Amino acid sequence: MEENVFHHVLPIQLRFNDVDKFGHVNNTVYFSFYDLGKTEYFASVCRRVDWNRTGIVVVHIEADFIEQIFASDHIAVRTAVCEIGTKSFQLLQQVIDTKSGRVKCVCRSVMVTFDLERHETIPLPEEWVADICEYEGRDLRKKKR
Amino acid sequence: MEENVFHHVLPIQLRFNDVDKFGHVNNTVYFSFYDLGKTEYFASVCRRVDWNRTGIVVVHIEADFIEQIFASDHIAVRTAVCEIGTKSFQLLQQVIDTKSGRVKCVCRSVMVTFDLERHETIPLPEEWVADICEYEGRDLRKKKR
Amino acid sequence: MEENVFHHVLPIQLRFNDVDKFGHVNNTVYFSFYDLGKTEYFASVCRRVDWNRTGIVVVHIEADFIEQIFASDHIAVRTAVCEIGTKSFQLLQQVIDTKSGRVKCVCRSVMVTFDLERHETIPLPEEWVADICEYEGRDLRKKKR
Amino acid sequence: MEENVFHHVLPIQLRFNDVDKFGHVNNTVYFSFYDLGKTEYFASVCRRVDWNRTGIVVVHIEADFIEQIFASDHIAVRTAVCEIGTKSFQLLQQVIDTKSGRVKCVCRSVMVTFDLERHETIPLPEEWVADICEYEGRDLRKKKR
Repeated sequence: MEENVFHHVLPIQLRFNDVDKFGHVNNTVYFSFYDLGKTEYFASVCRRVDWNRTGIVVVHIEADFIEQIFASDHIAVRTAVCEIGTKSFQLLQQVIDTKSGRVKCVCRSVMVTFDLERHETIPLPEEWVADICEYEGRDLRKKKR
Repeated sequence: MEENVFHHVLPIQLRFNDVDKFGHVNNTVYFSFYDLGKTEYFASVCRRVDWNRTGIVVVHIEADFIEQIFASDHIAVRTAVCEIGTKSFQLLQQVIDTKSGRVKCVCRSVMVTFDLERHETIPLPEEWVADICEYEGRDLRKKKR
Repeated sequence: MEENVFHHVLPIQLRFNDVDKFGHVNNTVYFSFYDLGKTEYFASVCRRVDWNRTGIVVVHIEADFIEQIFASDHIAVRTAVCEIGTKSFQLLQQVIDTKSGRVKCVCRSVMVTFDLERHETIPLPEEWVADICEYEGRDLRKKKR
Repeated sequence: MEENVFHHVLPIQLRFNDVDKFGHVNNTVYFSFYDLGKTEYFASVCRRVDWNRTGIVVVHIEADFIEQIFASDHIAVRTAVCEIGTKSFQLLQQVIDTKSGRVKCVCRSVMVTFDLERHETIPLPEEWVADICEYEGRDLRKKKR
C-alpha cells in the first residue's frame, strides 16, 4: 500500500485552538481532520448514496504520528479507500504538509455501512462500490480464495 | 442583578485541549461551559418540558472576561434565569473558581423557545415559567406597565 | 457602524463536529470562527508586531445570532477594527453566507494589548495603530473631547 | 491483557457539542477523553516528574469502537500502563459506561518521553518507571531475552 496514489486531497484550515499548550496541533484534533477528509471523499465520490438513509460508522482506527504540526503549517488530508469487503471497507489517510510534501501522520480505519433508519449494519451498496472503484481506478474488492 | 443568588452550580471538568498556546483556557471554550451549565439547568429545573419537541435557541450572548483560567484551576458554572418575557428570557451565568470563589467570567444571554417540529419560535410554556420561578424563588416575569 | 465596509474576509472550513444534534452549527463554535478571523486579520495587517512579545486579550464579547448555519453552507468571517482607544480597541465581525451574502451572526468584541513577558496590559503600539488605520482606510482613534 | 485490572478510572463530563448530528458522541471526541485520562494518570501516579521539562508524546494510537455513547450516558475512562520499554511505553485505555459497566471503546497507544527543552526523545526516567510499576502492582518492564 505504500505506493498508494491518493486521488483525493483536501486542504485543512487550522483553527487557533487546534494548537495546545505545547505549541503544536493537539493529537486529538488530527482525527477531526481525517473525519473531514472522509466526509468530503464520500460526498464527492459516492453521489448516488442517500446520506439520510445510509451512514458510515467507524469501527477501528489507528494512526501513526510522525511529525508535529505547527500553527503556521499548511496541511492537507489525503484520503483513499484501499480495500472493500462485503460488510466493511478500509480507508487509508495521511496528513501532509502541502509545501514540503512531508507526511505528518498516517491513519488507517475500518468502516461499516449502516442503515440509519433500522439502526443496523448493511452490506455496502453496489453503486457505492462501483463509484469508489471507478474513482480509485482499480478493483478494491477483497479477493475470495 | 449583582446581588443575584445562584442556586444552580455545575462543576466543570477541564480538558487538555481547552488550554491554548498561551497556557490558559481559550476564550472560545468558555461558551461550551455556559452551554453545559444551561443544558443541566433546564434538564433539572424544567422537567415537564418535552425536549424532543421544544428547544431553546440563543439569540444574543455577551460575556466579560475578568480573569484567566489555567489548566490546574477548579472551576464551576453558575446559572440563573434572571428575567422572563413572553417570547424570550434572560440567563445570567458566571464561571467561578471553586476554591477562591473568584468570578472569572460573566455571561448574559437572551434565549427564545422554539418548536423543533414546526421550526418556529413559540411563547414560553406556562409550566416551564412556573418551574423556573419556583426554582429561583421569585417571580421573574417582566412587569407590564 | 451598519454601513461598515469590511476589507477583511476569511472563508471558513466547517468541520463535521461543528454541527450539533439539532443539525446546525453549534453556537459555541461561532466564536472559534471569530477567533480565526481575528488571528488572520492581525497576522496580515499588523506585520510589524512581534507576536511572541505582544498578545491580544479579549475582555468583552457580544454576539447576535440571526440565522442558523447548516453543514452544507459556505460561510466566511468578515473582520474590521471599528474603534481604537489608548488601551483597548473594538472589533466588529460578521459570519456571512458567501453565496447569499446573508449575515448569520454579528459580533462585537473589546480587546486589550498585553505584554506576554511582563504579563500586563500595555498601550497599543503606535505602528500597530498606524497599520490598522491604513488598512481600514480611516482614522479609528477615539476622539478626545 | 484482557484480564487487565484497571486501577485508574476517571469519570468524564460530556459536553453538549460532543454529540454530533447522528445524536451520539462523535468518534473524534473519544480521543480527548483518552487524553484526559492519560493526563490525570500521569499527574497522579508520576509525582516526581518535572512536567515542565519532560513531556509525553503519542507516536501511535489505535482504537476499537464497540458501542455508541449517547448524551445521557454516564461514562468514565480507565487507564493502565501495560508495558514499558527503554524508550517507549504502552497504554491501555477503555471508555466504559459507569452504570452498566459495558466497554464502549478500547484504545491502545504507544508513547515516548520527550525533553521539552532540548526537543528530543529521552529514556524513561527511572523514578517514573518505579512509580508506575508500584501503582500498577507489577513489573511492566519488557523482558530482554
